[in-house]
Amino acid sequence: MNVTKAGRERILLVEDNDDHAELVTRCFQDAGEKPDLQRVCDGEEAIAWLDAQSASALPNLVLLDLRLPKVDGIEVLAYIKGNPRLASLPVVILTTSDADHDVARAYGSHANSYVVKPFDFARLRAVVQTLGVYWLDVNRSPSQT
Amino acid sequence: MNVTKAGRERILLVEDNDDHAELVTRCFQDAGEKPDLQRVCDGEEAIAWLDAQSASALPNLVLLDLRLPKVDGIEVLAYIKGNPRLASLPVVILTTSDADHDVARAYGSHANSYVVKPFDFARLRAVVQTLGVYWLDVNRSPSQT
Repeated sequence: MNVTKAGRERILLVEDNDDHAELVTRCFQDAGEKPDLQRVCDGEEAIAWLDAQSASALPNLVLLDLRLPKVDGIEVLAYIKGNPRLASLPVVILTTSDADHDVARAYGSHANSYVVKPFDFARLRAVVQTLGVYWLDVNRSPSQT
Repeated sequence: MNVTKAGRERILLVEDNDDHAELVTRCFQDAGEKPDLQRVCDGEEAIAWLDAQSASALPNLVLLDLRLPKVDGIEVLAYIKGNPRLASLPVVILTTSDADHDVARAYGSHANSYVVKPFDFARLRAVVQTLGVYWLDVNRSPSQT
């Protein structure tokens, strides 16, 4: 379904685990979504990558793990939401943690959404597929000019 | 698809237009989602309704129109996101406006997501269906205790 938009969408995936990054990438491919998916491996790299992008090159969506080397996910989230140039970027926390305190900290730092990665691959695929359709086709991203 | 949760979900729909409210309600029914959908007709009523709920009775999702009588949608959004008891509630702006300044104001006031209502009913149904699955089944709501 492509409900409101056309063109190639851009996703920043912040994920230190190679297997998880590979699985999420494959889920998008299986779903027929072909976003331009940029992956970085830790929080420091995520911030450096975002800072290096021009406004028009910023992603439509950030998928952010919580447990990250160097700078953890909540700090990356706080950096994005506290920076006027980046604050409107939709950030979805994508994590294995279902702990209430992680959920509360994420929403408290203005995460747009919080998604728990299922361990089962078929369920993960269904989750990533719905997530992709929602954020890339249904949600209206902020204009990047 | 019910990926991560069970039980009946609760939605607050803030919509002054009877036809739009009826259409959105019908879209959820057509999609097989059976949320407990509470509708209020203006911004003042939305705030009063939220203030009257106990923590455990708060909705999992607020669908918020922008152009509302008495108190407009952006003010309702600012009230929710500025109130520690309510700030974690996922708020999706659901509006006919595709104007950049409305999108910017909404994200600037910490809307979780912004969805433009298509005029065509079949497309509206597809949008509401994806929105329902994403926010009710895939997204992890904050705990309400």
